[in-house]
Amino acid sequence: MMAKEIPYKIYLDESEMPTAWYNLRADMKNKPAPLLNPATGQPCTAADLAPVFCEELVKQELDDTTPYFEIPQEIRDFYKMYRPSPLVRAYCLEKKLGTPAKIYYKFEGNNTSGSHKLNSAIAQAYYAKQQGLKGVTTETGAGQWGTALSMACSYFDLDCKVFMVKVSYEQKPFRREVMRTYGASVTPSPSMETAVGRKILEEHPGTTGSLGCAISEAVEKATTSEGYRYVLGSVLNQVLLHQSVIGLETKAALDKYGIKADIIIGCAGGGSNLGGLIAPFMGEKLRGEADYRIIAVEPASCPSLTRGKYAYDFCDTGKVCPLAKMYTLGCDFIPAPNHAGGLRYHGMSSTLSQLYADGLMEATSVTQTKVFEAAEYFARVEGILPAPESSHAIRVAIDEALKCKETGEEKTIVFGLTGTGYFDMVAYEKYNDGKMSDYIPTDEELAESFKKLPQGF
Amino acid sequence: MMAKEIPYKIYLDESEMPTAWYNLRADMKNKPAPLLNPATGQPCTAADLAPVFCEELVKQELDDTTPYFEIPQEIRDFYKMYRPSPLVRAYCLEKKLGTPAKIYYKFEGNNTSGSHKLNSAIAQAYYAKQQGLKGVTTETGAGQWGTALSMACSYFDLDCKVFMVKVSYEQKPFRREVMRTYGASVTPSPSMETAVGRKILEEHPGTTGSLGCAISEAVEKATTSEGYRYVLGSVLNQVLLHQSVIGLETKAALDKYGIKADIIIGCAGGGSNLGGLIAPFMGEKLRGEADYRIIAVEPASCPSLTRGKYAYDFCDTGKVCPLAKMYTLGCDFIPAPNHAGGLRYHGMSSTLSQLYADGLMEATSVTQTKVFEAAEYFARVEGILPAPESSHAIRVAIDEALKCKETGEEKTIVFGLTGTGYFDMVAYEKYNDGKMSDYIPTDEELAESFKKLPQGF
Repeated sequence: MMAKEIPYKIYLDESEMPTAWYNLRADMKNKPAPLLNPATGQPCTAADLAPVFCEELVKQELDDTTPYFEIPQEIRDFYKMYRPSPLVRAYCLEKKLGTPAKIYYKFEGNNTSGSHKLNSAIAQAYYAKQQGLKGVTTETGAGQWGTALSMACSYFDLDCKVFMVKVSYEQKPFRREVMRTYGASVTPSPSMETAVGRKILEEHPGTTGSLGCAISEAVEKATTSEGYRYVLGSVLNQVLLHQSVIGLETKAALDKYGIKADIIIGCAGGGSNLGGLIAPFMGEKLRGEADYRIIAVEPASCPSLTRGKYAYDFCDTGKVCPLAKMYTLGCDFIPAPNHAGGLRYHGMSSTLSQLYADGLMEATSVTQTKVFEAAEYFARVEGILPAPESSHAIRVAIDEALKCKETGEEKTIVFGLTGTGYFDMVAYEKYNDGKMSDYIPTDEELAESFKKLPQGF
Repeated sequence: MMAKEIPYKIYLDESEMPTAWYNLRADMKNKPAPLLNPATGQPCTAADLAPVFCEELVKQELDDTTPYFEIPQEIRDFYKMYRPSPLVRAYCLEKKLGTPAKIYYKFEGNNTSGSHKLNSAIAQAYYAKQQGLKGVTTETGAGQWGTALSMACSYFDLDCKVFMVKVSYEQKPFRREVMRTYGASVTPSPSMETAVGRKILEEHPGTTGSLGCAISEAVEKATTSEGYRYVLGSVLNQVLLHQSVIGLETKAALDKYGIKADIIIGCAGGGSNLGGLIAPFMGEKLRGEADYRIIAVEPASCPSLTRGKYAYDFCDTGKVCPLAKMYTLGCDFIPAPNHAGGLRYHGMSSTLSQLYADGLMEATSVTQTKVFEAAEYFARVEGILPAPESSHAIRVAIDEALKCKETGEEKTIVFGLTGTGYFDMVAYEKYNDGKMSDYIPTDEELAESFKKLPQGF
């Protein structure tokens, strides 16, 4: 292929956008371990999951052999409102770093939800609508997922009930208002609307809530309301499937210009962004067609891959969801305050966990102040104010580019810039004021948490 | 030209981006009236303006005959980081409205400043750098201009001193933090840093500041600090010149697909967005090559075009700047609280004022609740959460599309979507809670304000 001049931003034409999601599990020799029903200890069946999730999504969740799922036309039309997202050549960053490395980032922040979460939210809302449901319930912490789901439900005229961790509800009123503007009802959790909420409020009247509690309320609300189901924004296989659109577009854009990536970097909380970004590249690697260094970046305060146990654990703190085999810090592990709310999850997608266990990808952890240092540097050079989550990937991309500067290697680095930091200015303020602190859990704390992992699975 | 299928988003290639700004004044038979030196009553010379503005910008300000100014390569490179901006076909909005009209919007919000302001900020910072200056000063109210300038200065390693109206500084801490993240120093105004600030604080110890006061402080700081100049984000001819990039891209995108606009709509505060958007279209109209309906939309609370006087007035409340002939409500007019902070300006660009006086464009005003009704409707249908300012244009675009529904006319409507509303959620909250009120100044109030217009010019 003739070398073409590479623009600052590579946009695919609408005709080049993916028409099917890629199911990475189909190419895995070692399949991710199945979800287990905690009551029976047996793998979850479609019937087990049907009261909680939409039918079509249950199928996607359990299917580890079909390589491609066609993207329904209505979802493709919605994607066209904010996709394809640009693959940006970071010319200014390269120049500022003085590195021979070539740096690209896939920028998912140019939509009102401010992140990649919308890719799966619209799919989940679509299938709920197809099933004739009235609405869906979910929980949200930092608020990106709740915002994305509100937008998706508004588009399909579905009711959207969001249980928002009370402390976030109070501290992030602007996120809450975006959701309300899209017609969602936002309830601070714990609430009096559910039995589990009332019980918690009775036992702990002053509690500011937790993600685990909000999940429990959302699941209860879905399973006890006629015509509702529960939806989740990360961790699950179905979410990684939808998010493969990120990787497919990235690969198509690279291929269009004859670019071969050497290193692919993504931040990892529950794994939705990383799993989506790497999907087609990992597929090539699994099929022996190409090789890539793939690096997951997690916060040092919540290091599930780098310091967790690979074991069956509950997906939620409330222990109402199935068990998943994954790298986990224990579902009772409460990460120290870390402003990357989207990465404060005790576990990791079971697909990514299996790939990591099989040595197919690397993982590294970074401390918060180092992350914000990279975030600010990037903002000033590339113009985009990144989300704290995304900045974990920026940190490692910069570090790898600096290694290239030392060695003189012209590696091609691709990283995922999942979103923008407009609603994270409290964290930036702390950094600007020099008041940000780092926290790394001790071995003793983790050992204590591991003791509570469910036994016998 | 063969009809091509029109995508949801028309992106120009980088090679199709404008290489020169278009100076609309060159094609105007009736030139905008010159700025006057208030001390002499004579037109401002380059020497009059040089202590305040950068040399090259003074040239651009005073030149009403040169039709094109080449965009320096460094600015074009910066533009490539966030431009070309998409021209979006509002398929979903058309469908929801059930209108035969074809609606397009030029979306300028996909950059961290959240608006079109960056187009001129980077140009002004560039010329300051070229002149060997240390830095620039400015004022900001809502914060979009201050953010844009902070980003631009950070890119060129210039010092950036922003005087932010104290009430905004306190109520919009997130905007402030974005500026600080880009390395700007942000001072609540009035401050003890300037003589004018100290004087105001002495006379009114509890004041929360005003834009007029912040301008006075910024100008004093620039003219009394070695190596500094003052920069302004709207109203001036130089700003409209830089913003012509919006209209040039819009026209190139329309031409690429053989689309002819019938109506062009933009919100108007000081005129930077409207003047930029309409520039090439108005040029065709002035040269008799094409005809368009061009509509300026202003808030009913601050209706300079629709209810102001066409007269010489001060550009700033502090009366430190030159006099401009424009539609004005009087420089002492304080608009009632209106959440579109970017439209709360007592006057209007003298170029746009002249065009309006010559009957070459229309103007209309809309009330705040009607604007937010349109904003929410648009957000839910098109996904983008619009800035209150931009939503003035949305309101009128929707109204025109509904007229087409009645008449069955397939008009092509193009409007400017200048920015996003992520930092305006307090206003959306008021709307969501049904607590938003409208205010329209009475004829008596305006008559009182007109009495204070400077006499004898």
